[in-house]
Amino acid sequence: MSIARELAQRVCALRYEDLPPAAIEQAGICILDTIGITLAGSREDTALIAGRALGSGSGPSLVFGHQRRVSALDAAVLNGTAAHALDFDDSNNRAGTHPSAPIMAALFAIADEIGCTGRDFITASAAGHEVSARLGMAVNFHHYIKGWQPAATMGAFGAAAACARVLGLNAEQTAVAIACAASLASGIKANIGTMMKPQHIGHNARNGLYAALLAREGYTANTASIFEAKQGFFNVYNGAGNYDAAKVLQDWGSPLELASGISIKKYPCCGSTHAAIDALLALVRQHGVKADQVTRLDGWVHARRLIHTDRPQPATSVDAKFSLQYCLARALTDGGIIIEHFEGDAYGDPAIRRLLQRIHVAPYSEEQFGDNSDGAAVRLTLDNGRVLDMKIDDRTPITRESLEWKFMNCAARACSKAGAAKVMALVDDLPQLGDIRHLTTELAAAVD
Amino acid sequence: MSIARELAQRVCALRYEDLPPAAIEQAGICILDTIGITLAGSREDTALIAGRALGSGSGPSLVFGHQRRVSALDAAVLNGTAAHALDFDDSNNRAGTHPSAPIMAALFAIADEIGCTGRDFITASAAGHEVSARLGMAVNFHHYIKGWQPAATMGAFGAAAACARVLGLNAEQTAVAIACAASLASGIKANIGTMMKPQHIGHNARNGLYAALLAREGYTANTASIFEAKQGFFNVYNGAGNYDAAKVLQDWGSPLELASGISIKKYPCCGSTHAAIDALLALVRQHGVKADQVTRLDGWVHARRLIHTDRPQPATSVDAKFSLQYCLARALTDGGIIIEHFEGDAYGDPAIRRLLQRIHVAPYSEEQFGDNSDGAAVRLTLDNGRVLDMKIDDRTPITRESLEWKFMNCAARACSKAGAAKVMALVDDLPQLGDIRHLTTELAAAVD
Repeated sequence: MSIARELAQRVCALRYEDLPPAAIEQAGICILDTIGITLAGSREDTALIAGRALGSGSGPSLVFGHQRRVSALDAAVLNGTAAHALDFDDSNNRAGTHPSAPIMAALFAIADEIGCTGRDFITASAAGHEVSARLGMAVNFHHYIKGWQPAATMGAFGAAAACARVLGLNAEQTAVAIACAASLASGIKANIGTMMKPQHIGHNARNGLYAALLAREGYTANTASIFEAKQGFFNVYNGAGNYDAAKVLQDWGSPLELASGISIKKYPCCGSTHAAIDALLALVRQHGVKADQVTRLDGWVHARRLIHTDRPQPATSVDAKFSLQYCLARALTDGGIIIEHFEGDAYGDPAIRRLLQRIHVAPYSEEQFGDNSDGAAVRLTLDNGRVLDMKIDDRTPITRESLEWKFMNCAARACSKAGAAKVMALVDDLPQLGDIRHLTTELAAAVD
Repeated sequence: MSIARELAQRVCALRYEDLPPAAIEQAGICILDTIGITLAGSREDTALIAGRALGSGSGPSLVFGHQRRVSALDAAVLNGTAAHALDFDDSNNRAGTHPSAPIMAALFAIADEIGCTGRDFITASAAGHEVSARLGMAVNFHHYIKGWQPAATMGAFGAAAACARVLGLNAEQTAVAIACAASLASGIKANIGTMMKPQHIGHNARNGLYAALLAREGYTANTASIFEAKQGFFNVYNGAGNYDAAKVLQDWGSPLELASGISIKKYPCCGSTHAAIDALLALVRQHGVKADQVTRLDGWVHARRLIHTDRPQPATSVDAKFSLQYCLARALTDGGIIIEHFEGDAYGDPAIRRLLQRIHVAPYSEEQFGDNSDGAAVRLTLDNGRVLDMKIDDRTPITRESLEWKFMNCAARACSKAGAAKVMALVDDLPQLGDIRHLTTELAAAVD
């Protein structure tokens, strides 16, 4: 049977009752986190301008951070774009994706139109995460290095699968949705550092939802070989020999990606900088180092991550988000990274600019780390001649306390504190929620 | 200067007053032909189902063949999908594209919102044709063979350039529109033969218009190197060594693609079958051959065209449109190809099925044609032992009489004859038309 049909059968077979507690718990975390960062991103130009470009239509689906309601397709664009606007959304590092942003944007948009229970929403999320991650593993990291933004291209499939599930499509319709998504997926890395990068996520959230709606209404697409065909997704997007189709179905759901694969971001900047920031902050806290003591700061990350993060002199706020050097400078100076470090002219702060000259980054060697590690190493050389080293094998996970702090801080950019707290309580009780629209109604009411 | 900026400057510099008469005449032909085939396609499932998937929103822009008006973005999807639904739209064979469908769908959609003169519409069309064809020449035919549908991917750029021009964007905004389109373009050949193929055109008409609207509202994108960057359009979509960037600007506008590059379709099936049909019909007319005299029919076309047209036993109507064997069988049996041959169960006609067994197609050899010819050869072996050969170097162009016959026949599927005639008269006088909305108002009134 074809990959599209195999995926579709598995999506249809997923049941809430079969989900392990870890997946249900993680779904709540991903949903809370995605709502928070979408609220924070909702006031960013990339989302506001997209809202003007889409026009003044109205509909059933909430634009997070506003009281406006638009069509489900437009809401998917706007909430997906907002969710990725601050580069603060979660990631699946084995798959090379930011899974929740496109999946949740599409799901909330359609749930606002059709209504669905908290449990159905969680089940659909699990389906979306599994499909986007499995396809991501099959195409990455060639896909990533070549210049696709996997969060975008895989996001179309994740959103399609999640929406197909929540719409109750049958297996053949679900396969059609996935096959349609293969003709819509897009987003290239040359637009990283511009407003288009978050737009990639919004656009592909819409693409996935649109694919599911086409399938529901009776569309046809090549479900027999959309991935495997000579002119199919794998060969066109990756090229012969540059993918591993077997990884799509291998060990499917054991464990579910939603249960084990998701990393929540602690810092509002490119995920490729996080392990190095963790290592640096650990050194700073351990030794009480101050920025003015440091004569040289060295950082090492995977070469693949350096392609888009080696930006020694960021020239814009967006540029700064992807500058490993800037993020290390901020972490050393401020003891942490916050949204405000990427706003206004913060990137041009004179003390930071001086420090940037003392920061050197390089790809790590095979002696430092094995192949494809998400780890990082940093070395501080102090003015007294002391050299401090730290090496971590992976970014450290977020704590519940930090998650709630992040949510409240993000939500505060668009909502009242009381309103945000109500939303958090509803998400905590998601499996008992009879209709997701109660949650979005509270979200609309919480807007400042 | 970057390719995106060079293109943008040229788009902004185009003036109606500078267009050669041949371009203005061809614009009228393309617009008339595109309106006709859009009307014919407007009642096809691929367009009707897409209309349901997009929902019940309303707006200023006419859905051709209906009296419904929707948002400009939705109209671009629906009219672009309808325009390609019957595979009856024009082509630029040097570029490997179907240029008018996405360009006109996007232009009519936005013109219905903002209003524009006939002359501005023609100038914007010229800009769209030039940009899509020039990029097509740079990426083809590798792009085509690899499995992209160039009509779709290049359509996004053509629509973006045309819409940027009609919206009056400045050069930097136009460059942004083009750079945004590079992150939205999509459509793979594995979906040929399904409803998704026409959807590719509608989706990319929308992508181009959306890119222009984002640019107008102040979006940012990588105008400095979106095509040339390591992770830019050329390398990601084609791969290093598989494109010729110099062709984008070489001999720009000398002559304009709109003046010289467009081929109007005479048959409602894949353009890759046309030269062979022309050759066969010439033989049939010359010798008065009847189908039951033929014991064997051989056809030869370019190997690239055979990848998607070698379909010896079409299993659906859509499949039949791409079956070189079926099209040859129909031409031999019926003396021509009409829309009805691809409707209902016509593809299963017993006499045609029997004839299909006697039809053999193959890629032409270098001895038959030089490299990359659009020609074809056919050979009929008759029951009296006679062998008839015909070889043509290119498909033969449509006559004015055939164009009008095609328009009226296509329009008749959605409009009254009197209404269609009024529309044709308005298009004939396009340079004098003060507002394109007079034309779309007549179109709405003509709907049966």
